[in-house]
Amino acid sequence: MLGCGVLSSVRQGLSRGLSRKVGGWATGEGRKVDIAGIYPPVTTPFTATAEVDYEKLEENLHKLGTFPFRGFVVQGSNGEFPFLTSSERLEVVSRVRQAMPKDKLLLAGSGCESTQATVEMTVSMAQVGADAAIVVTPCYYRGRMSSAALVHHYTKVADLSPIPVVLYSVPANTGLDLPVDAVVTLSQHPNIVGIKDSGGDVTRMGLLVHKTRRQDFQVLAGSAGFLLASYAVGAVGGVCALANVLGAQVCQLERLCLTGQWEDAQKLQHRLIEPNTAVTRRFGIPGLKKTMDWFGYYGGPCRAPLQELSPTDEEALRMDFSSNGWL
Amino acid sequence: MLGCGVLSSVRQGLSRGLSRKVGGWATGEGRKVDIAGIYPPVTTPFTATAEVDYEKLEENLHKLGTFPFRGFVVQGSNGEFPFLTSSERLEVVSRVRQAMPKDKLLLAGSGCESTQATVEMTVSMAQVGADAAIVVTPCYYRGRMSSAALVHHYTKVADLSPIPVVLYSVPANTGLDLPVDAVVTLSQHPNIVGIKDSGGDVTRMGLLVHKTRRQDFQVLAGSAGFLLASYAVGAVGGVCALANVLGAQVCQLERLCLTGQWEDAQKLQHRLIEPNTAVTRRFGIPGLKKTMDWFGYYGGPCRAPLQELSPTDEEALRMDFSSNGWL
Amino acid sequence: MLGCGVLSSVRQGLSRGLSRKVGGWATGEGRKVDIAGIYPPVTTPFTATAEVDYEKLEENLHKLGTFPFRGFVVQGSNGEFPFLTSSERLEVVSRVRQAMPKDKLLLAGSGCESTQATVEMTVSMAQVGADAAIVVTPCYYRGRMSSAALVHHYTKVADLSPIPVVLYSVPANTGLDLPVDAVVTLSQHPNIVGIKDSGGDVTRMGLLVHKTRRQDFQVLAGSAGFLLASYAVGAVGGVCALANVLGAQVCQLERLCLTGQWEDAQKLQHRLIEPNTAVTRRFGIPGLKKTMDWFGYYGGPCRAPLQELSPTDEEALRMDFSSNGWL
Amino acid sequence: MLGCGVLSSVRQGLSRGLSRKVGGWATGEGRKVDIAGIYPPVTTPFTATAEVDYEKLEENLHKLGTFPFRGFVVQGSNGEFPFLTSSERLEVVSRVRQAMPKDKLLLAGSGCESTQATVEMTVSMAQVGADAAIVVTPCYYRGRMSSAALVHHYTKVADLSPIPVVLYSVPANTGLDLPVDAVVTLSQHPNIVGIKDSGGDVTRMGLLVHKTRRQDFQVLAGSAGFLLASYAVGAVGGVCALANVLGAQVCQLERLCLTGQWEDAQKLQHRLIEPNTAVTRRFGIPGLKKTMDWFGYYGGPCRAPLQELSPTDEEALRMDFSSNGWL
Repeated sequence: MLGCGVLSSVRQGLSRGLSRKVGGWATGEGRKVDIAGIYPPVTTPFTATAEVDYEKLEENLHKLGTFPFRGFVVQGSNGEFPFLTSSERLEVVSRVRQAMPKDKLLLAGSGCESTQATVEMTVSMAQVGADAAIVVTPCYYRGRMSSAALVHHYTKVADLSPIPVVLYSVPANTGLDLPVDAVVTLSQHPNIVGIKDSGGDVTRMGLLVHKTRRQDFQVLAGSAGFLLASYAVGAVGGVCALANVLGAQVCQLERLCLTGQWEDAQKLQHRLIEPNTAVTRRFGIPGLKKTMDWFGYYGGPCRAPLQELSPTDEEALRMDFSSNGWL
Repeated sequence: MLGCGVLSSVRQGLSRGLSRKVGGWATGEGRKVDIAGIYPPVTTPFTATAEVDYEKLEENLHKLGTFPFRGFVVQGSNGEFPFLTSSERLEVVSRVRQAMPKDKLLLAGSGCESTQATVEMTVSMAQVGADAAIVVTPCYYRGRMSSAALVHHYTKVADLSPIPVVLYSVPANTGLDLPVDAVVTLSQHPNIVGIKDSGGDVTRMGLLVHKTRRQDFQVLAGSAGFLLASYAVGAVGGVCALANVLGAQVCQLERLCLTGQWEDAQKLQHRLIEPNTAVTRRFGIPGLKKTMDWFGYYGGPCRAPLQELSPTDEEALRMDFSSNGWL
Repeated sequence: MLGCGVLSSVRQGLSRGLSRKVGGWATGEGRKVDIAGIYPPVTTPFTATAEVDYEKLEENLHKLGTFPFRGFVVQGSNGEFPFLTSSERLEVVSRVRQAMPKDKLLLAGSGCESTQATVEMTVSMAQVGADAAIVVTPCYYRGRMSSAALVHHYTKVADLSPIPVVLYSVPANTGLDLPVDAVVTLSQHPNIVGIKDSGGDVTRMGLLVHKTRRQDFQVLAGSAGFLLASYAVGAVGGVCALANVLGAQVCQLERLCLTGQWEDAQKLQHRLIEPNTAVTRRFGIPGLKKTMDWFGYYGGPCRAPLQELSPTDEEALRMDFSSNGWL
Repeated sequence: MLGCGVLSSVRQGLSRGLSRKVGGWATGEGRKVDIAGIYPPVTTPFTATAEVDYEKLEENLHKLGTFPFRGFVVQGSNGEFPFLTSSERLEVVSRVRQAMPKDKLLLAGSGCESTQATVEMTVSMAQVGADAAIVVTPCYYRGRMSSAALVHHYTKVADLSPIPVVLYSVPANTGLDLPVDAVVTLSQHPNIVGIKDSGGDVTRMGLLVHKTRRQDFQVLAGSAGFLLASYAVGAVGGVCALANVLGAQVCQLERLCLTGQWEDAQKLQHRLIEPNTAVTRRFGIPGLKKTMDWFGYYGGPCRAPLQELSPTDEEALRMDFSSNGWL
């Protein structure tokens, strides 16, 4: 098990821009939270009758709390947030806040399709204890989501949010890449602290780091499959579904990157690619939850219309872990 | 102005499968509603402060009520449903029910991301007066929306819906085409009566008609741009954004198709393509609402993050209508 | 068997713009060939050792010559032209010229990546007997193939070609849709007579017909799957891989469309969609050639890297024909 | 200027698998060439009348020969190979062979659409002096280019090639990604030594390195935009259009990566992203050639249908270099 203290001092030394943010994170008066580090995007456990199982949620959190994560993302894509009511979304965040270690960050997904609803959800998320809001791009009218529209949307949200805002671009779900020029513009907003980029285009990520270098703005990789490469181009952490099951390994990969042990980092990264793809693009949340069951967490069922894996898929999922030595 | 009586007898004579549905539409006991005809997907008017403007909604309905539409689609993509609260969605449907002519159909969009929420919204839509529910494919987890998952989703909704269900595939918004095999399977459900297909792939539409020919199942074109071609391959009507502004013309195109006046139909269709693209793919709902303002309806603003058209876009929009003789 | 005479008088009466082209087709002095009608895109037969089998080619042509086709497309995508040497391309066209009926048109594919090579191939195609050149969009540098670049390319080719030029847009192979504005510009060139559009977007096809209505410019459907719909929006024929095996049926569909028997046309069109998809998008040229073997033509092997169908695929291919009553 | 000696010893120490290839590169008997390093993909200069300008080609080579490149790629996508005749392709390679330093590698693009033509071109490329053949995926029939078809194609080429074969996947041009499983299978062929991967998906590149780790198989990045990230995940070099104009800088980036100076590498990488995108995806070969003119090489015109940059584009191109301090 990796110690959190080591990592946090490593982060102090190596992360881009850290020297600009002395004394830890804070909100208000233009000061920004430092979001560098690894986050599992927490899944939402359901009972057999599709109720949110808050008890299992807390149990999972207690187990996850032992790893040197920077914090937790709640209501990200892996949290099945589009399947939750507004009150469930808030209650889940509230419970996680209570169950998780005090020194870690809680990033709460507060994105909705309309700007107004996003503002309201963001304010509510702050009220139930979120440290920052992670806001997915609205996407249903993607044909009209120009840079100007997205800048307007995020600016409004950030203006009215009592907590810092993290942009969230996840084209596999939204069919929309938050344009580089929009990110650059938004990085200048005093209440926007970074982006979670799940697209996997590392050229783009490098460009984002480069063009926001004069801002207090941090880039997080949205998946463990390109975590090493993301660190290499200047990202400061990752929100990794895989960290829900291989938490120690993802944190170790972070540490190897931050301490410059690139050869070992590369070997570890290689062994994480197939498992990561399996619990994300290949088998989605059903795959992630099935794997959680294997690794001592509560995965359980998804809400419909997400379906359970077929036995064939389950076997392929297992192979993606076992062939890399994780099962 | 076209008389509704003519059209409805034309529909009786020509629409596929009508002979199987004697005595008008009804629900329950496996009997199905006949949805053949033209529908404007009603927009949701907002005040300057982004409140739903129910008065303007009713005024628009009164004007639209004079055309020989088969009915109205409420809470389709053009209704900005993702920007409305659940209670707004229901209130809008309720108001439309009261404002519209009694003899027309009200198809209410009730799709949500989760199966359970969709069921609940569908039941509620029935309670406020919808004649049928039009259910968009869930899409956020499109990577997992296999045919099996979608069949499961729609079957559950149709099982529990007190009103007939119309499938709704709109890949421009959802990034997802409801697969042909899923549609064919679902066409056998006693409470599923048809599909609104907005993809514009007329080969696919012909195949849908062909492979569901032994079912009481009807195909509606999701846009006026390919309405003539859709009739040619066996569709029985259309849900056409353009009908919000050129209602008489879209109904005339229907009549020309149903009475076999293909040469005139073709000429009219040609003149509708650019205006149609302008109020859909090219300029979206902001373009549609701007055009409504020009044509004597209340268009008004959209909710954010949708933005107003720039002056340049507005000029191009105007050209798409004027160059075809509509302005 | 349908008589060609009937069809040709039907075409005289109904095809758009025919009245402007009295006295049959001709080249030079701005007069244009009338390309209305159905064309099979001829396959290139190979021996077991992958040599062009000119004898089998001639035998196929003799059989195909009995149908009321307007002519033949040689070196279209189905002719495996990218696998032939320049001299093979010319020799195949030359042989087809000799083997085919004198009163039919020979459209020869002469597209190459560079403008200069396309010009040279077009001139050579004319020398070996082509009546018109059908010129696919260059595509390897599709990122740079702006409307301006494509207009420049086709203008140069048409300027220097001794025979009329037909534009050819086939995004499934090229990843590139010849833009509408480029087509409209090019339709004004005295030596450009039409377009073969294989994309299947019937809204676009209607718009092409509409916006070129003041030119001598004809639109051909590039596939039998949307042939009826294409006629409905103003196309005047089709280049249909399926016509290599169901020649009578595709010609019958043409006749039903041209004589306004839309109900029968629709029924026939429906039964052709799956077989058409099977020999195009689904199983490609290997599927088409396999089917030719079944229908009394010589199909034979493709050149590598195209592979033979697996037994499973072959069974699925057979089903697509038998389930529609063609086998 | 960086010395080649330093780099080559660095490569000896750090490149994956180098220990297995003692004594330099060689062909035959299962021994493989070591392709680690940086390569400019040489452009083909044309005169004002679109003839190949062999003199300018040689002049460019003499200038490029002063950088510590591992070698040169000739007839890659940037060489406009689809616009050259077969004899021009060979003559260009022959001239480059004579003009370039003896100790460097010449990788010659020999891909054609058919397997047979590719084999013949590969043999010819060997005869005019190529050290290895770099073979782009056939793509016109991409719908049929299954893993099996591609494995068959490359196996045949590699079997019959007198020189080692490098796979080449460039989806921006071909619309086709050589599938991972095909690459893994092909990596076991004794005459296939690596892949140039231009897709930019670094997760995929890491997986390729991981799953071919037991083979003598090397991965080259196909663009300078993700060169650092590629090294981080185990690539051993790159074929970089940008190296035609910023040769010293790309080689410096290589050296920084190979010597573990990741912080400096990151800074340099950042400044190369926009210039790299400008001469590849954004402005293509016309952009690259224009930039070559600025940097003391001969760029000159492209063959049609590639067009010159507009003044506006040229200004934007200049900005992409000047804003990063290169002009």
